Amino acid sequence: METSIVQIKDVTLKTPIMIEGLPGVGHVGKLVAEHMVEELGADKIIEIHSSHFPPQVLVMGDGTVELVKNEIYAWSGGKYDLLILVGDYQSTTNIGHYELTRTYLDIAQKYDVKRIYTLGGYGVGHLVERPRVLGAVNDIGLVDEMRRYGVCFKENEPGGGIIGASGLLLGMGKQRGIDAICLMGETSGYLVDPRSAQAVLRVLSRALDMEIDMRALEDRAKEMEKIIARLREIERAHVRAPGEEDLSYIG
Amino acid sequence: METSIVQIKDVTLKTPIMIEGLPGVGHVGKLVAEHMVEELGADKIIEIHSSHFPPQVLVMGDGTVELVKNEIYAWSGGKYDLLILVGDYQSTTNIGHYELTRTYLDIAQKYDVKRIYTLGGYGVGHLVERPRVLGAVNDIGLVDEMRRYGVCFKENEPGGGIIGASGLLLGMGKQRGIDAICLMGETSGYLVDPRSAQAVLRVLSRALDMEIDMRALEDRAKEMEKIIARLREIERAHVRAPGEEDLSYIG
Amino acid sequence: METSIVQIKDVTLKTPIMIEGLPGVGHVGKLVAEHMVEELGADKIIEIHSSHFPPQVLVMGDGTVELVKNEIYAWSGGKYDLLILVGDYQSTTNIGHYELTRTYLDIAQKYDVKRIYTLGGYGVGHLVERPRVLGAVNDIGLVDEMRRYGVCFKENEPGGGIIGASGLLLGMGKQRGIDAICLMGETSGYLVDPRSAQAVLRVLSRALDMEIDMRALEDRAKEMEKIIARLREIERAHVRAPGEEDLSYIG
Amino acid sequence: METSIVQIKDVTLKTPIMIEGLPGVGHVGKLVAEHMVEELGADKIIEIHSSHFPPQVLVMGDGTVELVKNEIYAWSGGKYDLLILVGDYQSTTNIGHYELTRTYLDIAQKYDVKRIYTLGGYGVGHLVERPRVLGAVNDIGLVDEMRRYGVCFKENEPGGGIIGASGLLLGMGKQRGIDAICLMGETSGYLVDPRSAQAVLRVLSRALDMEIDMRALEDRAKEMEKIIARLREIERAHVRAPGEEDLSYIG
Repeated sequence: METSIVQIKDVTLKTPIMIEGLPGVGHVGKLVAEHMVEELGADKIIEIHSSHFPPQVLVMGDGTVELVKNEIYAWSGGKYDLLILVGDYQSTTNIGHYELTRTYLDIAQKYDVKRIYTLGGYGVGHLVERPRVLGAVNDIGLVDEMRRYGVCFKENEPGGGIIGASGLLLGMGKQRGIDAICLMGETSGYLVDPRSAQAVLRVLSRALDMEIDMRALEDRAKEMEKIIARLREIERAHVRAPGEEDLSYIG
Repeated sequence: METSIVQIKDVTLKTPIMIEGLPGVGHVGKLVAEHMVEELGADKIIEIHSSHFPPQVLVMGDGTVELVKNEIYAWSGGKYDLLILVGDYQSTTNIGHYELTRTYLDIAQKYDVKRIYTLGGYGVGHLVERPRVLGAVNDIGLVDEMRRYGVCFKENEPGGGIIGASGLLLGMGKQRGIDAICLMGETSGYLVDPRSAQAVLRVLSRALDMEIDMRALEDRAKEMEKIIARLREIERAHVRAPGEEDLSYIG
Repeated sequence: METSIVQIKDVTLKTPIMIEGLPGVGHVGKLVAEHMVEELGADKIIEIHSSHFPPQVLVMGDGTVELVKNEIYAWSGGKYDLLILVGDYQSTTNIGHYELTRTYLDIAQKYDVKRIYTLGGYGVGHLVERPRVLGAVNDIGLVDEMRRYGVCFKENEPGGGIIGASGLLLGMGKQRGIDAICLMGETSGYLVDPRSAQAVLRVLSRALDMEIDMRALEDRAKEMEKIIARLREIERAHVRAPGEEDLSYIG
Repeated sequence: METSIVQIKDVTLKTPIMIEGLPGVGHVGKLVAEHMVEELGADKIIEIHSSHFPPQVLVMGDGTVELVKNEIYAWSGGKYDLLILVGDYQSTTNIGHYELTRTYLDIAQKYDVKRIYTLGGYGVGHLVERPRVLGAVNDIGLVDEMRRYGVCFKENEPGGGIIGASGLLLGMGKQRGIDAICLMGETSGYLVDPRSAQAVLRVLSRALDMEIDMRALEDRAKEMEKIIARLREIERAHVRAPGEEDLSYIG
C-alpha cells in the first residue's frame, strides 16, 4: 500500500454527496471543484499522500513547499452535505489509479456517502461555444434524473471510455453499492476551459439543488477568451489566406 | 495480488474445456471466442478485475459504465462442457500477464479443466486469402491429434514465440499438468480479421466435435472485404503505375 | 521494501545537520556535497543500496567494481556536526523516490537530525555569470533566517516545483517535524556547473558558520569556463553574423 | 517475490565455480556459456521462472513451447566442478535484475560456490579483428591472477559500468563474500560475435585449467565472417568512392 491518509479535522456529516474534481481534460473538473471549495468556504478535513504521485513538492508564494497530494474538503449548510475531492495530480501509474480510487471509496464509505459526482472534460478537438454536458452513470436508474438536470446521454460518447479517477469511481463505486455519475463538459482538449467548467457547474448546481456564485469562473472564462482572440490574430498575421483552416485546432 | 475474481453464477460442469480469446493480433482470438459466446448463448459466471488492466471504464450504449475486465462464460449441451474466457484488454504490465494467467489457471483447476485452447492471430505482414491455422502445444503428444483437425505445425513458426495469455497459458498450464493448445490463424496483422477467425473456428469445431453457425462471422468477413476493396481503390487512384507494389501492406 | 542500509562505521554525533547533494540539474548539489566530503575529510558511515537504482556496477580505476549506491558521510569538528548524503544516482522509479526519502529520514531521525539542507541547481536556460541562490523551506519561520545568509525567495520560482530527493526531504521531513531548506543555485541546465556550486557553498558556509576552502571548485569552474569559451568560438566560426542569438543556449 | 526455482535434478558438487552467460552485448557471454554446456554435456539441474521475464513462450522445432526462463547446468569431471547459468532473457525491469541476481546468489550459496565468472561483450563501435578480453573484479586481489590468464585491465574501461546480471553478480556477490570476475570480450556491439566469444573462452579455459573444443565456435565465427564480407560487398556496390568511411559501422 503506497497511499496514506492524514485526517486534518473531524467533522460530522449527514450522508454527504462526494464530488471529485481532479486534473484531467481541459482541467474542467478541477476548475469546478476548486471553485466550489472557494465559494462555499469548505473546510479541509483530509490529505491523501501516495508514492504513485510524482516525487515532487510544489513551491508556494511564501517560499514554503507542499508535498504533492490530494485533499478532501467538507461543507454543510445546504440541502446536501458535501465532500469535495481536489488535488494537483492523479496517479502516475495504472496500479496507482486503482489504489487511489479504493482510498477515495474507503473515505466515502466512512462518511456514509450514497452518491458521487465525478467531474471532467470531454475533448472534442475544436473550440466549443456552447458546451454540452455529457453524462455516464453506474446505475441505469440515474439516467432519467440526470436528463432532468440537463445532462446529455449520447450513444458512443465518450467513445474511448473514461480514464482515471472519474471513471474508476463509477466502476468501483458500483461494486460497493454507491451511486455515481460522471459529468463531462465538452471542451477543445487543448486549453484550460472555464467556459466548460461553468456548464458543468450549472448542471451540478441543479443536481445539488443549490446556488453557487459563478462570477469568478465567468471572469476566468472572459480572460481565456481574450487569450484565444489574441492567438487567432497572431495566427492570422502569419498564415497565408485563406489559411483560416489552419486555425481549426484552436477554433 | 492486484487481481480479484467475482463469481456471478454457480454452475456444475463436467471436466470442461477452457477456450481463451482475449485481444491480440487481428483480434482473431477475440472474434472467435465472442462469436461462440453469442452463438451458444453461454452464461457469464465469473468477472476478473485487475489493477494491471488500464484504469478505465467503458461507456455502454445506455449511458452506464463497465469497469474494464475479463469474463468467463460457461456452456454445456455438447460433447464437451466449455469455459470461454473473453475480455476487453490484457494486462498493461509484464508482471500482470503472469499474475492474470495464474488467475485463469486457478479457475481452470477449480473446474477440473484438463485441456485449454488459446486462440490468436499470426501476423504475416500481407493479406492472406486462405489463412492456415498454425499450432503450438505444451505436450508433444498433442501434435498428431491437432494435425488431424487441420492444424499446421511448421518449424520456426511463429518465430518470435507467443506473447501474452495465449502463450503463458501453455507454458504455465504445463507446470500444472493441463494440456494446452494455441491455435493461430494467419492474418495480415494490420486489420481486424474475421476471415482468419473463421479458419480458426473451423479447426476448433472439429476439435470440439460440435457445429457452430458461422454466418455472423461470414457477414463480418464480407464487410471487411468491402472495406479492403475500397482502400485498394483509393490507393490505386493516388499511386503512379505500376504502384501496386506499394499496396503490399494491405494486399 | 527494495532498499537496504549497510552501517559501515559507528559514530556519535550531536544533533547533526544533514546535507543532501545527489545528482540533479547541473550536478550543483553533487558538486557541493562531494567537495565538502573531500575538503573536510568526512568519514563514510553508511551505504544505501536499492533495487530502485539502475541495475549496474561502476568500474573503478583499479579494476574493482562498486555497486551503484548512495552514501552518508559524517563529520564533526565545527560548530555543527554534519551528515552528508551523496551518491551516483537517484531512484529510477517514482515509488523509489518516496521509499529512498523515507530511508534518508529514518537515518536522520536515528541521529537526531533537526535540520536538513538539500542542495540543487535551478535551470534557467541560459548561462548565468553571477548565479543567485534560490531557496525553499518547509517552515515559514526559516525564510528570514535564510535571507540573512543571502538566499533569494522569489514568488513562482521555481515554478515547476522541486523534483526528487531535494524536494521530498522537505515535504516528507515536515511530516516528521524536521526543518528542511532547499538551496538551488541558478545554472543553465545544460552543463555541469561548478560556478553555481560555489554560490551555493558560499551560502551554506554562512548557514553552517564554517569556512570551507573553495580552491578545488574554483579550479573546476575555470576549466569549465575555458571549455565554454572554446564552444563559443567553434559556434562563432560556423554561424553567419549576427548569429550570436544562436548561442543563447550556452550564453 | 516474482521469481521461482524448479529443481530438476539433484547433484553433489565440490565447491563449484559458477559461470554466467546470459544475453547481452554481441551475445558473447551467451555464446560461450551455451558452447560449454554443449561441449561438456552438462546436466540441467535448475530452471528459474520470473514474472520479470517477458510474458512469453518460445516455440520449439517440434511444435511444443517453452516458458521463457533461465537455466542452470552442472558439470563435474575437471579440476573444478561447474554451475553454468544460461537463458533466453534477462529481467525486463530494474527491480527484477536485483531480484534475479539475489536468486542466482542464493543458488550459488546453496552449492557453496566460492567464485563466479560472469561473461559478456564490451561494445567498441567497430569490428575488432583480435578482440582483447577486458576484466573487472569484486576483490582487488583477483587482478593479478586474472592478468596471468590474459585479461586486460584498463583504466576507465568499460566507462559506463556493467549493466545487468554480469555486473550485479560482482557487486552483490561481494556483499556475500563470493569472489567474482567479469570477463568482457571486445566486440562491435552490432552483431552476434563468435570471434569475441572464442577470445573469452580461451581466457576462461586457462582460468579453469581445462581444455574445451572450440571447433563449433570457430565454425560459427567463419560463417559470421562470410556474412560480414557479403555485407561489405553490398555496401561497396551502393556507395560512391571513396565511400569506405561509411562502412565503419561494420568494419
